[in-house]
Amino acid sequence: MKKSHRQTPSGKTRARGAGIPFNGTPGEHNAITDVGNVEVGYCTLIKGQSGPLVVGKGPVRTGVTAIFPHGRKDPAAAVYAGCFSMSGNGEMSGMAFIEERGRFEGPVTITNTHSCGVARDTTAQWLSQQMAVAEKIDQPFWLPVAAETCDAHLNDMDGHHIEREHIIRAFDDARGGAVEEGSVGGGTGMRVFEFKGGSGTSSRLVPYQGCTYTVGAFVQANFGSREFMQVAGIPVGRELMDYGCASGDELGSIIGICATDAPLLPHQLNRLARRCAYGIARAGGIAANESGDLFLAFSTANRHRIDVHQGVTSVDLIGEGALSLFYEAAMEATHEAIMNSAFANESMSGRDGRVVPALPVAKVQAILRRHRRLVDV
Amino acid sequence: MKKSHRQTPSGKTRARGAGIPFNGTPGEHNAITDVGNVEVGYCTLIKGQSGPLVVGKGPVRTGVTAIFPHGRKDPAAAVYAGCFSMSGNGEMSGMAFIEERGRFEGPVTITNTHSCGVARDTTAQWLSQQMAVAEKIDQPFWLPVAAETCDAHLNDMDGHHIEREHIIRAFDDARGGAVEEGSVGGGTGMRVFEFKGGSGTSSRLVPYQGCTYTVGAFVQANFGSREFMQVAGIPVGRELMDYGCASGDELGSIIGICATDAPLLPHQLNRLARRCAYGIARAGGIAANESGDLFLAFSTANRHRIDVHQGVTSVDLIGEGALSLFYEAAMEATHEAIMNSAFANESMSGRDGRVVPALPVAKVQAILRRHRRLVDV
Amino acid sequence: MKKSHRQTPSGKTRARGAGIPFNGTPGEHNAITDVGNVEVGYCTLIKGQSGPLVVGKGPVRTGVTAIFPHGRKDPAAAVYAGCFSMSGNGEMSGMAFIEERGRFEGPVTITNTHSCGVARDTTAQWLSQQMAVAEKIDQPFWLPVAAETCDAHLNDMDGHHIEREHIIRAFDDARGGAVEEGSVGGGTGMRVFEFKGGSGTSSRLVPYQGCTYTVGAFVQANFGSREFMQVAGIPVGRELMDYGCASGDELGSIIGICATDAPLLPHQLNRLARRCAYGIARAGGIAANESGDLFLAFSTANRHRIDVHQGVTSVDLIGEGALSLFYEAAMEATHEAIMNSAFANESMSGRDGRVVPALPVAKVQAILRRHRRLVDV
Amino acid sequence: MKKSHRQTPSGKTRARGAGIPFNGTPGEHNAITDVGNVEVGYCTLIKGQSGPLVVGKGPVRTGVTAIFPHGRKDPAAAVYAGCFSMSGNGEMSGMAFIEERGRFEGPVTITNTHSCGVARDTTAQWLSQQMAVAEKIDQPFWLPVAAETCDAHLNDMDGHHIEREHIIRAFDDARGGAVEEGSVGGGTGMRVFEFKGGSGTSSRLVPYQGCTYTVGAFVQANFGSREFMQVAGIPVGRELMDYGCASGDELGSIIGICATDAPLLPHQLNRLARRCAYGIARAGGIAANESGDLFLAFSTANRHRIDVHQGVTSVDLIGEGALSLFYEAAMEATHEAIMNSAFANESMSGRDGRVVPALPVAKVQAILRRHRRLVDV
Repeated sequence: MKKSHRQTPSGKTRARGAGIPFNGTPGEHNAITDVGNVEVGYCTLIKGQSGPLVVGKGPVRTGVTAIFPHGRKDPAAAVYAGCFSMSGNGEMSGMAFIEERGRFEGPVTITNTHSCGVARDTTAQWLSQQMAVAEKIDQPFWLPVAAETCDAHLNDMDGHHIEREHIIRAFDDARGGAVEEGSVGGGTGMRVFEFKGGSGTSSRLVPYQGCTYTVGAFVQANFGSREFMQVAGIPVGRELMDYGCASGDELGSIIGICATDAPLLPHQLNRLARRCAYGIARAGGIAANESGDLFLAFSTANRHRIDVHQGVTSVDLIGEGALSLFYEAAMEATHEAIMNSAFANESMSGRDGRVVPALPVAKVQAILRRHRRLVDV
Repeated sequence: MKKSHRQTPSGKTRARGAGIPFNGTPGEHNAITDVGNVEVGYCTLIKGQSGPLVVGKGPVRTGVTAIFPHGRKDPAAAVYAGCFSMSGNGEMSGMAFIEERGRFEGPVTITNTHSCGVARDTTAQWLSQQMAVAEKIDQPFWLPVAAETCDAHLNDMDGHHIEREHIIRAFDDARGGAVEEGSVGGGTGMRVFEFKGGSGTSSRLVPYQGCTYTVGAFVQANFGSREFMQVAGIPVGRELMDYGCASGDELGSIIGICATDAPLLPHQLNRLARRCAYGIARAGGIAANESGDLFLAFSTANRHRIDVHQGVTSVDLIGEGALSLFYEAAMEATHEAIMNSAFANESMSGRDGRVVPALPVAKVQAILRRHRRLVDV
Repeated sequence: MKKSHRQTPSGKTRARGAGIPFNGTPGEHNAITDVGNVEVGYCTLIKGQSGPLVVGKGPVRTGVTAIFPHGRKDPAAAVYAGCFSMSGNGEMSGMAFIEERGRFEGPVTITNTHSCGVARDTTAQWLSQQMAVAEKIDQPFWLPVAAETCDAHLNDMDGHHIEREHIIRAFDDARGGAVEEGSVGGGTGMRVFEFKGGSGTSSRLVPYQGCTYTVGAFVQANFGSREFMQVAGIPVGRELMDYGCASGDELGSIIGICATDAPLLPHQLNRLARRCAYGIARAGGIAANESGDLFLAFSTANRHRIDVHQGVTSVDLIGEGALSLFYEAAMEATHEAIMNSAFANESMSGRDGRVVPALPVAKVQAILRRHRRLVDV
Repeated sequence: MKKSHRQTPSGKTRARGAGIPFNGTPGEHNAITDVGNVEVGYCTLIKGQSGPLVVGKGPVRTGVTAIFPHGRKDPAAAVYAGCFSMSGNGEMSGMAFIEERGRFEGPVTITNTHSCGVARDTTAQWLSQQMAVAEKIDQPFWLPVAAETCDAHLNDMDGHHIEREHIIRAFDDARGGAVEEGSVGGGTGMRVFEFKGGSGTSSRLVPYQGCTYTVGAFVQANFGSREFMQVAGIPVGRELMDYGCASGDELGSIIGICATDAPLLPHQLNRLARRCAYGIARAGGIAANESGDLFLAFSTANRHRIDVHQGVTSVDLIGEGALSLFYEAAMEATHEAIMNSAFANESMSGRDGRVVPALPVAKVQAILRRHRRLVDV
């Protein structure tokens, strides 16, 4: 197994490195960055010792994630896109625009629930500035995609600690290659199945008629009651109810971003986004009442033809006969990204002295071994 | 004014021929058949004198309309499509398929509410037979578009008089060129603003960058309380409340079909379908509580590339900068088609001795003349 | 284990009887009929030996299923409802109406793809007749829910063997209590994961604040490539690739009906319908490109208050804090219903001599035993 | 005519005061504030002389509007709600939440395109603070509704001049009674049909079965090519093409908020929101390619029962037989609100020396008089 498949850049063991079986073949870094020039940047904000919440002071356990569909070098690039709200207790700005126009422009940001507005506005401002510097034609307005999940369990979310500078820092941090996971960027203060969760990513190769396409997923995972957690189809959650605060809290959410270099049109990307939701189901999630489970899918193909605003142009698309290959890839990459957000992580303490435990990996491995579902690494 | 713009093939005066002003320039026949090879066929079923309803006997005032996107010669052709439910108290089979795949195949049928099932199944059967005769590859199933409005005011709708043969007859009747309007085909027993309504059509030319595209509309108009009727922006309905049974009945509906030869992708056609609903508003309609106002838009472009099921292909599309031209064309063609369904019509009697009066055209003209909104013809 | 949980009325072993583990507690019959007065009726049509297809002759392997939300005694009852298209390559008439009005009326029918039109029209006709007999007020039109999946693999679907009488027969067969499963009614000719599939049902009890509500699911399961099949989270499909024709055929579909006696409003039922789709994911389904996966959820509560068309009325609803309980129940009942459609079944031969094998239950049990996922019965 | 129907608080003449005919009867102030305790607050930000744009300096022509469904005294009140995207080139945060839960909480804000993020986040922060002060139970997160249209034609929108304090100022300004219109609040820098537009409001009384309900509309109108403008059904725009810069610019948008005290459930409010879009059509709008036309409808009824999160509760609703009355009221109030945004306004100069002319009311009156469509006031 490649090192990048086994561990994150900082050395945390990923799900695959822990012997969890998955279907399909990942790309080079098993990350959304395996798709074209997709880049991911983080700004992680951790301040203050674990202790009583003082709104405006802390403790601060939050951050921002930025995903550039065509990398920082082409920051305002438009991409064809589709989206899906599996459970709408959340926010992803730009969804009305994507439904209408089948596209979005600029980097996607993900942060905490009370800061996705500033992320959105700052992205607009930054895009205007980038275009001014590049002496490109003035675009009068931007409708950026900014999404969120709620980190109020650990973070002083009402303190609104994310400022414009933190969004820019996430932009400046954007890069290709291996992607750090767990409690970084927007995922810093998140929980998944009441274990420490947050950022996770994965990818799949899709060989088709002599080409090899890539599907990548990135999640900010913050959902799930412990009891429902499944790993490799085994309901491990119910055997782990005594690890930390498994309260059945269902306030979490998940944002899922799916990228592909295959040429898919907007109506095809809507279909892809909808299937990503099955990645949650594979992990045991139920899209709970208070959960905001929002999905975005985009294609990096047709880069310059999308910009043709006048006249007639032509765009490429994959015949529908191939779509199921992409569905399975998207579901499985989303599923593995969720697993990575939990496996490649550590315990964190924060607001009001709360501690969110890391997934007890050895214990999970023992359960899977008992069920002959653990893979030798 | 061209004769075909002034009157229907049977000699009934169309709205334009009566001096009603409209925006834009119609195509040759001012009909949906101005778009590519679109063909329209009718089967009109009128049996029994006006008199007491005997379910299963009559009186029968109903029919079927068939619209072939690429004409009868290419009966199973797939077209890119979009749809919109402005008011969902109606049925248009195939909508889930159009939303998923951005396409439909075969002729569209429109009939009465209790017969759109037989229209749908018969279309599937007929398509399989056509493909067998043509020795084309076996397609295992069809999901045809069959829509309806309710003619129970005049027709023995519970008698289910539409049989398979009537659907086939509408197919066999399909042709290009000028299209009859009013109480023909599926529109036979319909009412609009409590006047005799039914089938109507219109088209608009859209010059754009050296090409001339066409947008055509066909409606089965069966909606509206008299009081809301507008002609040329003038609320004529309220001055016509004493013509026949203006009861404020809101049980009607409208099916609107919009065709264009411009290359539009599915997400663009969804947008177009949504705008067609404004054609109702221009006529004073309110998408009433019991009204089923469903819209379909399709493009005849990209004919053979849509059929590519495997591999990568490319399709043409109009840049979004041109779309507003198509919106205005679609709204106005839909609007004029509604007007035509009322203007090119005659009174009809039917079930239980009910009489639905024709629009009193001279009276409408007098009102418009008073408001300086009548055009010299 | 109750006998009705272990086997179907005809004695076929259900999934639970075969030792498959599921979450939650089923109702008395582990069937959708555990909800209020819900009744299910079948008409099964099997004619002709397995052999070459002669369109119009056979072999015939098809049928009709009817589900009455309030039983045959209250045949035209309106119920609050929601729906969801997870994959729209299918048909469920009435969806536009449900989205608009949050309700539907009369029995739901499920049959083959080319016969859901006749099912729909016949339901409208039958409802008018029932109302006439009951001397109830004349309702001018009906917009029934009629859904389909494709049985063309085994059945002469293009022969359109379902006639009006067969729909009526399914109505006449409607009853409460235990429900037969497998190759009966609309499910007669269906396949699931390329094993014999068709009709399946299950239910869950939902204790909440001193009441016990019930959620029931009924599926017509006709989806899935063999390779993706999961039982109890274990990917058994890939170990069963050599049983009969596992071609990776993805033409199938699933219709899922979810009933509850809990008072849920239309917007809550839309949410419930969307979650039912996770029941497919739990079985390993991917909502494949050609699959038509459509879901309907309805509540039998508020029976007479829904009929109030004038004035102000009030309706009951469950507070949102309870919804996740219903989500999990709906997913799991849908999941078990899918399993039942495969477990309580037998091999069938039909069109062109094709044989669809029954799920090799002993082999599945062996695989699960190896993974310690089989329950002692 | 009541003074408040004839002119705004500052003395500008409203459409009705100028003799424009409308259908229906307005409430006391002909404003959204006629509904229950709805309150509207503005913060208007005008800085710098008209002249060259210096990003970050100005000229500043912008602002914020806040609408409290239950007034400032009940700032976090939840209301049942529905929404509709007629044309999605815009942003209204909270739409996914409204679709999922049928509700929203707290004040609605409307501002410019690049500031609706800060409006959203600030609303969340302010709500948490209000709840803390009131010692109400801690709600961990808010998903506020914040909408926008683009004022970049006159305003230094890329300068992001709206800060948190301006949002708060709009909250602090909230009041019932007569509502100022035109270039105030979020509407400060907007254009409608290339005349000065912005904020407008209107209301209608809906007598029904002995009760009188109210429907109110508020718009931030910023849409429309001059050529399409209609007043009282007369296409006045084409006769006014030489007033200022009628460039056919279609970058505008409209946000429409519809309030009622009638008890409507979420699925009914979705229907109402969709009909509001016809108010645009009545004014001649076409939901142009670049236009973001988003609608929100809410009901102030069922105030405390919506808060019941556990157990079973009951809510009131209007029978569907009355809905068309509310549709017509909502369309017409939206229509009149749009007219008011143009009539009760004045010319404004701003960015790069651009001048947006006020609607030439006397000229419009002359045209309508010629067409006998002007009402004696």
